[in-house]
Amino acid sequence: MLPGCRFAVTDCGSFVALRAARGYHASTEHCASWSSVMLISCVAYQNGRKLADIPIADISEYVGRPDCFVWVAMFEPSTDELDEMAAEFGLHELAVDDARHGHQRPKIEEYGDSLFAVLHTVEASKTPEGDEVLLSGEVDVFVGRNYVLSVRQRTKVGFSAVRARAEREPELLQYGSGYVFYALMDNVVDRYFPILDGLETELEKIEEQIFVRNAARSNIEALYALKQKLMVLKHAVDPLMEATGRLYGGRVPQICTGMGEYFRDVYDHLHRIHLTIEGIRDMLTTAIQVNLGMISLSESEVTKKLAAWAAIIAVPTMVAGIYGMNFDVMPELKWTYGYPLAVAVMVIGDIWLYFNFKKVKWL
Amino acid sequence: MLPGCRFAVTDCGSFVALRAARGYHASTEHCASWSSVMLISCVAYQNGRKLADIPIADISEYVGRPDCFVWVAMFEPSTDELDEMAAEFGLHELAVDDARHGHQRPKIEEYGDSLFAVLHTVEASKTPEGDEVLLSGEVDVFVGRNYVLSVRQRTKVGFSAVRARAEREPELLQYGSGYVFYALMDNVVDRYFPILDGLETELEKIEEQIFVRNAARSNIEALYALKQKLMVLKHAVDPLMEATGRLYGGRVPQICTGMGEYFRDVYDHLHRIHLTIEGIRDMLTTAIQVNLGMISLSESEVTKKLAAWAAIIAVPTMVAGIYGMNFDVMPELKWTYGYPLAVAVMVIGDIWLYFNFKKVKWL
Amino acid sequence: MLPGCRFAVTDCGSFVALRAARGYHASTEHCASWSSVMLISCVAYQNGRKLADIPIADISEYVGRPDCFVWVAMFEPSTDELDEMAAEFGLHELAVDDARHGHQRPKIEEYGDSLFAVLHTVEASKTPEGDEVLLSGEVDVFVGRNYVLSVRQRTKVGFSAVRARAEREPELLQYGSGYVFYALMDNVVDRYFPILDGLETELEKIEEQIFVRNAARSNIEALYALKQKLMVLKHAVDPLMEATGRLYGGRVPQICTGMGEYFRDVYDHLHRIHLTIEGIRDMLTTAIQVNLGMISLSESEVTKKLAAWAAIIAVPTMVAGIYGMNFDVMPELKWTYGYPLAVAVMVIGDIWLYFNFKKVKWL
Amino acid sequence: MLPGCRFAVTDCGSFVALRAARGYHASTEHCASWSSVMLISCVAYQNGRKLADIPIADISEYVGRPDCFVWVAMFEPSTDELDEMAAEFGLHELAVDDARHGHQRPKIEEYGDSLFAVLHTVEASKTPEGDEVLLSGEVDVFVGRNYVLSVRQRTKVGFSAVRARAEREPELLQYGSGYVFYALMDNVVDRYFPILDGLETELEKIEEQIFVRNAARSNIEALYALKQKLMVLKHAVDPLMEATGRLYGGRVPQICTGMGEYFRDVYDHLHRIHLTIEGIRDMLTTAIQVNLGMISLSESEVTKKLAAWAAIIAVPTMVAGIYGMNFDVMPELKWTYGYPLAVAVMVIGDIWLYFNFKKVKWL
Amino acid sequence: MLPGCRFAVTDCGSFVALRAARGYHASTEHCASWSSVMLISCVAYQNGRKLADIPIADISEYVGRPDCFVWVAMFEPSTDELDEMAAEFGLHELAVDDARHGHQRPKIEEYGDSLFAVLHTVEASKTPEGDEVLLSGEVDVFVGRNYVLSVRQRTKVGFSAVRARAEREPELLQYGSGYVFYALMDNVVDRYFPILDGLETELEKIEEQIFVRNAARSNIEALYALKQKLMVLKHAVDPLMEATGRLYGGRVPQICTGMGEYFRDVYDHLHRIHLTIEGIRDMLTTAIQVNLGMISLSESEVTKKLAAWAAIIAVPTMVAGIYGMNFDVMPELKWTYGYPLAVAVMVIGDIWLYFNFKKVKWL
Repeated sequence: MLPGCRFAVTDCGSFVALRAARGYHASTEHCASWSSVMLISCVAYQNGRKLADIPIADISEYVGRPDCFVWVAMFEPSTDELDEMAAEFGLHELAVDDARHGHQRPKIEEYGDSLFAVLHTVEASKTPEGDEVLLSGEVDVFVGRNYVLSVRQRTKVGFSAVRARAEREPELLQYGSGYVFYALMDNVVDRYFPILDGLETELEKIEEQIFVRNAARSNIEALYALKQKLMVLKHAVDPLMEATGRLYGGRVPQICTGMGEYFRDVYDHLHRIHLTIEGIRDMLTTAIQVNLGMISLSESEVTKKLAAWAAIIAVPTMVAGIYGMNFDVMPELKWTYGYPLAVAVMVIGDIWLYFNFKKVKWL
Repeated sequence: MLPGCRFAVTDCGSFVALRAARGYHASTEHCASWSSVMLISCVAYQNGRKLADIPIADISEYVGRPDCFVWVAMFEPSTDELDEMAAEFGLHELAVDDARHGHQRPKIEEYGDSLFAVLHTVEASKTPEGDEVLLSGEVDVFVGRNYVLSVRQRTKVGFSAVRARAEREPELLQYGSGYVFYALMDNVVDRYFPILDGLETELEKIEEQIFVRNAARSNIEALYALKQKLMVLKHAVDPLMEATGRLYGGRVPQICTGMGEYFRDVYDHLHRIHLTIEGIRDMLTTAIQVNLGMISLSESEVTKKLAAWAAIIAVPTMVAGIYGMNFDVMPELKWTYGYPLAVAVMVIGDIWLYFNFKKVKWL
Repeated sequence: MLPGCRFAVTDCGSFVALRAARGYHASTEHCASWSSVMLISCVAYQNGRKLADIPIADISEYVGRPDCFVWVAMFEPSTDELDEMAAEFGLHELAVDDARHGHQRPKIEEYGDSLFAVLHTVEASKTPEGDEVLLSGEVDVFVGRNYVLSVRQRTKVGFSAVRARAEREPELLQYGSGYVFYALMDNVVDRYFPILDGLETELEKIEEQIFVRNAARSNIEALYALKQKLMVLKHAVDPLMEATGRLYGGRVPQICTGMGEYFRDVYDHLHRIHLTIEGIRDMLTTAIQVNLGMISLSESEVTKKLAAWAAIIAVPTMVAGIYGMNFDVMPELKWTYGYPLAVAVMVIGDIWLYFNFKKVKWL
Repeated sequence: MLPGCRFAVTDCGSFVALRAARGYHASTEHCASWSSVMLISCVAYQNGRKLADIPIADISEYVGRPDCFVWVAMFEPSTDELDEMAAEFGLHELAVDDARHGHQRPKIEEYGDSLFAVLHTVEASKTPEGDEVLLSGEVDVFVGRNYVLSVRQRTKVGFSAVRARAEREPELLQYGSGYVFYALMDNVVDRYFPILDGLETELEKIEEQIFVRNAARSNIEALYALKQKLMVLKHAVDPLMEATGRLYGGRVPQICTGMGEYFRDVYDHLHRIHLTIEGIRDMLTTAIQVNLGMISLSESEVTKKLAAWAAIIAVPTMVAGIYGMNFDVMPELKWTYGYPLAVAVMVIGDIWLYFNFKKVKWL
Repeated sequence: MLPGCRFAVTDCGSFVALRAARGYHASTEHCASWSSVMLISCVAYQNGRKLADIPIADISEYVGRPDCFVWVAMFEPSTDELDEMAAEFGLHELAVDDARHGHQRPKIEEYGDSLFAVLHTVEASKTPEGDEVLLSGEVDVFVGRNYVLSVRQRTKVGFSAVRARAEREPELLQYGSGYVFYALMDNVVDRYFPILDGLETELEKIEEQIFVRNAARSNIEALYALKQKLMVLKHAVDPLMEATGRLYGGRVPQICTGMGEYFRDVYDHLHRIHLTIEGIRDMLTTAIQVNLGMISLSESEVTKKLAAWAAIIAVPTMVAGIYGMNFDVMPELKWTYGYPLAVAVMVIGDIWLYFNFKKVKWL
């Protein structure tokens, strides 16, 4: 939408700095002329080794060489920038459309012999009120025989670690774009684990509180918040798991051939997360019902207490009422010890009541 | 049922006006002689370009030409009108039956090498009471090798935008009826998104209210209304998603050949909507349970308040009752400061009670 | 079980009359000699046209002719009568067993190149208490290459309409037994729709009442009754849908060859009913939960009202109690306007309470 | 575990008597020497006709003859006895292990060209408290080309009826072991029906009570007991249904060849039971929720009654309190008709309250 | 992580002792030099018979011989130790990674012609508070053509019993690594049964308490604890069952060929456990709902009691109030028996109330 170098003034420096800190060549000369902020890096590789940082315009040339592959990382590109990439790489219109609009569900689609994958990142964040929420970002990956283009959206953490690792292990990078695709997926999926651990910890905390009296309100709020977070993670994980299951065994896309065990490993991680999510969901449902039971139970206890104290107060009131009657002939009223006796009746009655209520656990 | 030009007097003008406003040639000469109100347009195309608006009677001729295709749009046609079309295009009796009766579930059926699709439109509408409801309309589409006939029922918005876009892009329209079918589906599906967004917003609004005291009744009503709307959307989306899944990969109908990626894209959108609906349903169920918990909790709090205040009132009443007794010998009654003392006992007792109830959060 | 002409005296006439009224030749000569009451009709067809009403004993002969087919309709036959038919048509023992015992689930089974289908009819009926219930009847259909035998049990409405329609359309009847089978299924399935509409209307009526105060008890009873009816319909529809799905596409029974589009149409109707049933079930579950919430809410409101009025009564009682004390020195008691003042305190206190309770919606 | 003739002294006679009563040759000579109590019968057949009761040691000889088959029925055999049988028939170690340990889930397994089936019997029984419970027994069936060995455990009713029927119909028994296997399954499955009918009747009884006031506790207990019984039946039926589904259509075990229609019939019965169980489960869930609603409703009604009567008592108490005040100047106290007037106020107030509470259905 | 002999000082002796007690050659010479604590045993077999305890360094040599196989058992090895094993056996990097990190879901994966299995052990343990919890341990098994390596983590019980049994039955051990793999799985699965029995017993205990008054709180806690344990077992069983289902029938891994019946037996046990778990879960859900109903019911009973006693106290209070009024003209006050009469009215009124409340079961 916004043409040119959108964040040039405010953000370019920081990103360049960021990249420098991560050990990249900060190709600052691009920033002024073109939206290099959105361009995290653009590198050509040959035989698993880095050849050079290349300018955008040269991409198509490098992609044309049979023994080269180009790996480009972008961050929230504008429509124009994306279109330029689409032209350089020859991407399919529908895939580019999806990347442009964002907000796709996780998926892996084949377009001829290239792949288009949408991954969701999930990041914990604090609301202004101090509540933790999970934010969902998006990574769109275009993978061809000799290129990988990753487009990152609404997510803070990038993939420089993936690139660094890949460059350290040229024997794996030699596998080409399939390996890079695996490494990106693996990285995204690995980031789900701390999130999931956080949710499990949260459930355990609630479980510790669930049978504590007077915690029902905070429990119910915590349970609902946990459910909301769980759904964010579930929406990231489940469709991806389903899609990853088609990358090994049976007929697999050309690009993934020979890497079946790696993609099965990713699938396996996703399946583990999936099962844990389902387990938490199941426990959540039970916990909500149990909590409802605890609320009813606590109300029942309040009612019992109310009833017991009402009785303890009502009995002396009744006795007092009787001796407040104005009958002419009420012999007790004449007795010297009538008053203390009446009070004694009240007190003893109440003590008896008190201990009986204690015995039946109403007090 | 009703023969001839059903809405001729009242509606024809407005429809013609409508069409004119959308940039069509208002073929008003048809209106008087034939139910042109139900006929939104009837155009022949060749090589992706518009050839001419054609009269109904010529349809079969154009359909007979190998390089031509005819695209007809109707709105709530009468039985006779539909039968005429069936004759011109050679439609299958069962499909025409379905279109005639309406109220079909969404589906895509093959009849020989032609397709019959039922799509549901979903439109938000206000009831006289000001509540928003979702109304479900129907679009029946007959697709043959060189014709497309769309029959729109109980839905306000038409498909002129689809036709306009198609005519602007002759290179796509060249694909023929398969492309038009895709464009119609894509248009119908795209209209689900704002509806879905509305439902998500509604859920978020309820979620903001769900832990607010005294909002239980309005929440429960809102949750039920949301569920009702969700079901309308679900009934439109789920069967269509299932049907669309058979238009790509594996064996596909002849008409859709070569357009697999387009139909997969539609499927993908439907699947995203489906997942979001399921997510909302799941949250709704939890929200209803949580709301039930909040009601119980709030009742529990009322009972506590009731109990606390009852105690605060009952204690002085009891004390007063005691000093209202008529015993001859009650020394306190003779004391000069008996009365203020008694009142002091009452007040101090109540203050003590009050702060204790505050402490245990009953007040 | 009962041999011979079971209902001869009481029912034969009425049935014959019934048939006569429907335009059949009332073959009353059979009634005296044989249980013709259970035999609704027995007709041979050739090339789609009625040949003749034939006696039972001739069935095997007509079935033997290659260009003929025989269509027999029975109503609650005795075991003997069924056995005679089994012998004439050469029916499979297990299928006849099923028809004899009745109370089968809906199904369609192949026995060699013949079919045995069990369909459930569903009819609304009033109990003596005036409640509407759904009664499930059974239609067993034996279909061979050139015969159709339908056995109707526990259901009032017959299939004379199907026969009349078939005889009016010889070009369809020419398809033979497969078409008759389709027509019978279509008729049974079509009868589900008004039942389903009734259930939807019932749900809507309940939904109108669900947020109305003090309707909880009648709502909960209506919801349960609706659920019961829904289950009757579901048990008729779901197994039949599953079975019908095997009559088109892929490998189909010989008899149904070439009629795939017709059986798909029946399947489609069943699927629509199935989806609607599932939708109603889902809404029912939610409605029951919502109703539970409304009950809790209404209880909560009662408790609030109770608490408010208790306070309004208790405050004057307390004040009165205080001035009922018998202390010697209580200056207020001496005041001329003491009494009105005390009453004023009570009244003002109550008015203040009343409006405060109004404000917080407890009253 | 226990070697030899376990129940020889106490049970042998009775079992022999039992068998005699059922028309078997009571081979009592075996009882003394060997655990014939556990051996119900051991018979060789040829061409569908009984050849002879044979001693255990001869089994392997008869099994070796191509035109013979041996049918042995055992009841709770000891480990040694089972091992002897395993040796005679050449049974697979794992299958024998399963039979030895018992408590298997229902299943049908192929071992080479023999079958091993575990069936569950379900029998109603009374607890000492008079509650009805369902007890699950086990029948292990080993089926080979020319032998059937049935091992009955924890179940009272045997299969003499099956044998008697089979011996009466030599033309069916001629089918060999496959037919016997079918007959045993059919017998076990047929016994589920009265159990299922009992559960349906039980549900209906509960349904009659569910909207009756003050029946909530007994209803909830009955619902839970019904659920428990349902689960016993479900655990017997569901796995067996699944296993039976593999005995017809597609690739079937050698032994069942040509009997597809019979096993489909068994499957069909199991499926009917399965569907009914699911239906009852569904209604049960709803009934439990409805019952919960009734409890809440009844509590709500109690609260209303409590509130109404509290008001009716509190109003006169308040009035009395007011006229119990000791103000010097209270003109009403001097009035001659003051007292009756005050009482009249109380009574009229209460009557007014009473009818108002009646009107709003609180009383 | 920790290099070398981690538990050398404290644990080595005990482990060696343990092994000695189990009849192993305690190769203590390894313990000092290398983390032999983690190495439970390392043995080579030929033709089903033990050849020798071999040092780690010789493993690759023995694995190289075609007629030998090596069976190594480890306990919580360090990363270095695992890497050494990986080198000796030539294990796949991803599988070793999984074993290193632990906390995998149960699974069985093929890597070329070797298998990698993750099994979960489940052990009951007491918390410091005395509650029983289920702890989940892990066993990673690497199986190749002629080796088995088991890595045990976070679980107390080892597999010496499996080895002892295997060595006693050389005819089975001859099957090679496939048999050892089966024996390990069988052992792990067999250990689930007592756990499952414990859970069933727990459910039965709760069921006995569920309709007992005042047990709601402990029941709800017990139900939740049971659910938690059930989930631990479920997470161990379900994925393993799924994975085991691929080891027989259809295409099976090379190593498992010819052992289909054994793995089906394991599958069958897992399926039985699975079904029982699902049964318990289902009953648990119902039990939680029923418990909720019991809580509501008990609250309802408390409210009734409260109401009844409130009435019994309020009536005399009201009567007393009336005769406490100060009207000049109140004839009853003058009566000699006025007072006893008033008291009699109170007492009789209360007795009447009491028996009426008894009759309607409010008391």
